[in-house]
Amino acid sequence: MIDLEKLRDSNFSLTKNGHVASYIPALARVSADQLGIAVYDLKNNKLYKTEQSDIRFAIESISKVITLLYAIKQRGFDEVNNRVSTRQTGFAFNSILNLEIEHENKPLNPFVNAGAIMTTSLIKPQDELTPFEQILAFAQEICHDPDLSLDEEIFYSEDETGDIDRSLAYYLKAHKMIQDNVTDSLRTYFKQCSMKVTAVSLANLGAVLANDGVKPWDNERIISSRAATFTKSLMMTTGLYNESGVYSARIGVPTKSGVGGGLMSAVPNKYGIGIFSPSLDKDGNSVAGLGLLTDLSDALKLDIFK
Amino acid sequence: MIDLEKLRDSNFSLTKNGHVASYIPALARVSADQLGIAVYDLKNNKLYKTEQSDIRFAIESISKVITLLYAIKQRGFDEVNNRVSTRQTGFAFNSILNLEIEHENKPLNPFVNAGAIMTTSLIKPQDELTPFEQILAFAQEICHDPDLSLDEEIFYSEDETGDIDRSLAYYLKAHKMIQDNVTDSLRTYFKQCSMKVTAVSLANLGAVLANDGVKPWDNERIISSRAATFTKSLMMTTGLYNESGVYSARIGVPTKSGVGGGLMSAVPNKYGIGIFSPSLDKDGNSVAGLGLLTDLSDALKLDIFK
Amino acid sequence: MIDLEKLRDSNFSLTKNGHVASYIPALARVSADQLGIAVYDLKNNKLYKTEQSDIRFAIESISKVITLLYAIKQRGFDEVNNRVSTRQTGFAFNSILNLEIEHENKPLNPFVNAGAIMTTSLIKPQDELTPFEQILAFAQEICHDPDLSLDEEIFYSEDETGDIDRSLAYYLKAHKMIQDNVTDSLRTYFKQCSMKVTAVSLANLGAVLANDGVKPWDNERIISSRAATFTKSLMMTTGLYNESGVYSARIGVPTKSGVGGGLMSAVPNKYGIGIFSPSLDKDGNSVAGLGLLTDLSDALKLDIFK
Amino acid sequence: MIDLEKLRDSNFSLTKNGHVASYIPALARVSADQLGIAVYDLKNNKLYKTEQSDIRFAIESISKVITLLYAIKQRGFDEVNNRVSTRQTGFAFNSILNLEIEHENKPLNPFVNAGAIMTTSLIKPQDELTPFEQILAFAQEICHDPDLSLDEEIFYSEDETGDIDRSLAYYLKAHKMIQDNVTDSLRTYFKQCSMKVTAVSLANLGAVLANDGVKPWDNERIISSRAATFTKSLMMTTGLYNESGVYSARIGVPTKSGVGGGLMSAVPNKYGIGIFSPSLDKDGNSVAGLGLLTDLSDALKLDIFK
Repeated sequence: MIDLEKLRDSNFSLTKNGHVASYIPALARVSADQLGIAVYDLKNNKLYKTEQSDIRFAIESISKVITLLYAIKQRGFDEVNNRVSTRQTGFAFNSILNLEIEHENKPLNPFVNAGAIMTTSLIKPQDELTPFEQILAFAQEICHDPDLSLDEEIFYSEDETGDIDRSLAYYLKAHKMIQDNVTDSLRTYFKQCSMKVTAVSLANLGAVLANDGVKPWDNERIISSRAATFTKSLMMTTGLYNESGVYSARIGVPTKSGVGGGLMSAVPNKYGIGIFSPSLDKDGNSVAGLGLLTDLSDALKLDIFK
Repeated sequence: MIDLEKLRDSNFSLTKNGHVASYIPALARVSADQLGIAVYDLKNNKLYKTEQSDIRFAIESISKVITLLYAIKQRGFDEVNNRVSTRQTGFAFNSILNLEIEHENKPLNPFVNAGAIMTTSLIKPQDELTPFEQILAFAQEICHDPDLSLDEEIFYSEDETGDIDRSLAYYLKAHKMIQDNVTDSLRTYFKQCSMKVTAVSLANLGAVLANDGVKPWDNERIISSRAATFTKSLMMTTGLYNESGVYSARIGVPTKSGVGGGLMSAVPNKYGIGIFSPSLDKDGNSVAGLGLLTDLSDALKLDIFK
Repeated sequence: MIDLEKLRDSNFSLTKNGHVASYIPALARVSADQLGIAVYDLKNNKLYKTEQSDIRFAIESISKVITLLYAIKQRGFDEVNNRVSTRQTGFAFNSILNLEIEHENKPLNPFVNAGAIMTTSLIKPQDELTPFEQILAFAQEICHDPDLSLDEEIFYSEDETGDIDRSLAYYLKAHKMIQDNVTDSLRTYFKQCSMKVTAVSLANLGAVLANDGVKPWDNERIISSRAATFTKSLMMTTGLYNESGVYSARIGVPTKSGVGGGLMSAVPNKYGIGIFSPSLDKDGNSVAGLGLLTDLSDALKLDIFK
Repeated sequence: MIDLEKLRDSNFSLTKNGHVASYIPALARVSADQLGIAVYDLKNNKLYKTEQSDIRFAIESISKVITLLYAIKQRGFDEVNNRVSTRQTGFAFNSILNLEIEHENKPLNPFVNAGAIMTTSLIKPQDELTPFEQILAFAQEICHDPDLSLDEEIFYSEDETGDIDRSLAYYLKAHKMIQDNVTDSLRTYFKQCSMKVTAVSLANLGAVLANDGVKPWDNERIISSRAATFTKSLMMTTGLYNESGVYSARIGVPTKSGVGGGLMSAVPNKYGIGIFSPSLDKDGNSVAGLGLLTDLSDALKLDIFK
């Protein structure tokens, strides 16, 4: 493995650019000057990591990957595909424009908010566990992180400020895309966004995706090969919202971001990558994180289109 | 190589589905019951092909790849990137909605019509050759097809019916995205769409892209590595218009389609693929062509996200 | 007064065209073959009416006029004008497109759903009366109809099916246009839509507007002259949603419609008109009602642009 | 008549606000500090006017009224109505959004650019006169202004900078709304916008509209009553673009504006009004002109909704 600390150091000054998310207090008070990376190498089955890669932060939109995978696991690939498209959007992650202009009968993809609320709504109570309890247990397992847990303060704030998500959810309900109770689904959705992870947990998640759905640390399959392949494709085409095409052309690594400052990448058959740096660009992506990922992609020749 | 004729046979009945393009006479009178495929294998540097892979047909939108590559070659990577985005659109290939709604100052990507007209407009006369003469010569070389030529009848019809493209071009000019004479650029654009190729020419083009920009048949570099990688990424995220995400998730092979019935794919470091079958689905993509490409991707394990 | 019964008879067959509203049971079971009209003549201070002009039906969107007038009365003209625009929309009454595309910070006007929810939200509890209790009392007075009351079944259904209104309300809240509790405002909004009126009540309401804000039956001012003038203008430019321009050019009478089959018009200084006929065209306007209104406008030369 | 000079004086300082149109040199060099008004009083058949009411300026969008009236005269009311709607738009006068989002098959109204280009295209050569020659002769007659003529420099500039209009025209042609030669229609359109008028000419035009289509100075009918009524309605609902609803609610007088600084109003059966003041607000309407019109409407009680 190349020298990750050195790569981290050379990108650290980028943490001065951008701003941490400020829409809720628990995110607004996070220090901007943080950068950590963890890389799971499938070749030798080893995890490499730097300073600050064990700091906990809010998973936010990266949880959409976990929920998508769990919805496929519980409800089947076809059911999920019938209920949400895999198309891109030219608009913001929380926009209703495409849905209304094109008279869509499905959310555009699982990574815009409308689509993520939809996949969350597909998860049903099971074995006396609520949807969120199941998601949490699944997240702990696929991230190889038993300490991964809900941050109640963040959840409370997400719920309190989540009016645009409520607007989207009721739009879906009004158009019969969601049949169930919207309030419950939103509650689960806000909770899943409020789980706390580390760069290491995300590298593990990326490693499972990169490893065709098999956890490399115990060699057990947790998701189907098809789900893993499908999700990596979606991360490439829609993982960074309407900037996805830009980063696909620039970095070429399937990646999902979250406004907590996380980036999670899966390089097929090679690496899982987790990065944390909370200062965001105007599109809500980690500035130093993307800088570091670009350098890593160049250094390890990760661009899958190369 | 697997048995291509057999794969072709098993998809041939799909040519009964869909309809050939009908907006101009020269396309409308093409027989629907045609299907041909050619695959350039980089491993042994050999081209495999089936019946009907030498039939000539209109390149249409696949020419956007050629013009993009030539514009990068002539004007440089940065100049092209400064003038056209690499973002996806949630709308049709000839829509103005994203541009106007988002107040964009660049066309969204080189594969929607507005973006393709833009890249065409970047190409300047050189060595006493018009932009189209240069494009044609470059196309002959990169497709390894000296017989590749302009179909005057198709060009005449494209020009006659191209009012939506004129509308887009004047929109770009009104917003100062294009400075030059719009009439000339449109003329070049309609001509490039009216070149005639075969499945074999497209397999060769795909092979150059797959081979990092080096023509495998003579081992000479014709485009930069960066241009090749960039273009494969764009083919994945926007090559099949607003259905790009759908096919990325389903097939996972960088591909560009044209309403003449062509499909051109580039599997990094492995294969160039050319397919011809003129009957189109409602999105303008070849029905039997996509069926055959899906089977080929499964058989040869081409999904780059797997 | 011209022979209203004769005018009614000649338009009665139009009740066979269109369909009664079907989104809630209480509206779906209303008989289509009904048509009634009442005209309040300010010249001689007399009300003329036909058969079926005393049938009760749901006021639906015509309540938006009442709430607007009451909001102005309680909160002042400027406060209401600061919170909702008087612009037209090219889209459906329940669309979010203009708001999001144009980044509006106010609903477009008080007669699209978003704007009506906004005006409703402006009304505050007062003298120990809830907003709805105040609206109801005001409606009874301005319609000169002490029997005007809430239909609990309709309210229940409106509330149950009102997800698009919830979506709009949370959009307004998310963008800080509404500060208060959205659930309460929606409840009041659904209630105001569920009041039952007659063609006579609507003719009285129209007469107050036509009479510059003074109730002609007791010569007492109930709303300001400015509010009356302002509201008649709005009825002309936005009273029939995005078809307002069409009917302004065709009929030329300030009118507000509701999907319960009501039409309410105010001809400045001349007439108040109330019509009921529940069969609707595709835009949600009463078919026979508009036929009858057109004939009446021609017969009495009501077009204010003539 | 009230003291027009006094009203003019009290609004003159408003000419300091806003900016003159700057997209072409001939408009950019007009002095901002100008304000003139003319009022044609139908009661006594007299024209009242102030200083600067005889200054010539470019008619620009007010020509859309003249062309609409002439198209109705030449082609009939129904033909014009079949080809262009009377609906409002929530967007800018030169936007394509409504057309494309709603899949409209007609321009929204005759006063957005797309609709005006359409009405212009309806006018056919006749009696060996080109469409523009007919429009000019009609304009001279209906404005009672034999000196009204084309400004070649303005025409040349309009033509040179009119790319957004070309974009709209080709969109209409691509969707079969216009069948004829677009280049000719655009040329006529740019010419009609480049005619020069005075506040007096516009007051005369307004007087004909106010007088039901009869020229009050010679008592001869020049347009049908229906055309006059229809046009006044359109001026009210769409005459000031997407701000029409705002001014309808604020002033209540059917008015059409132009970026040359003109305003033309028609108060049914009472007055024709022409105003000139070239400094424009951000919506392209004359600042001092609207101030003066508001004061005049208050003073003479012109609000037709009052």
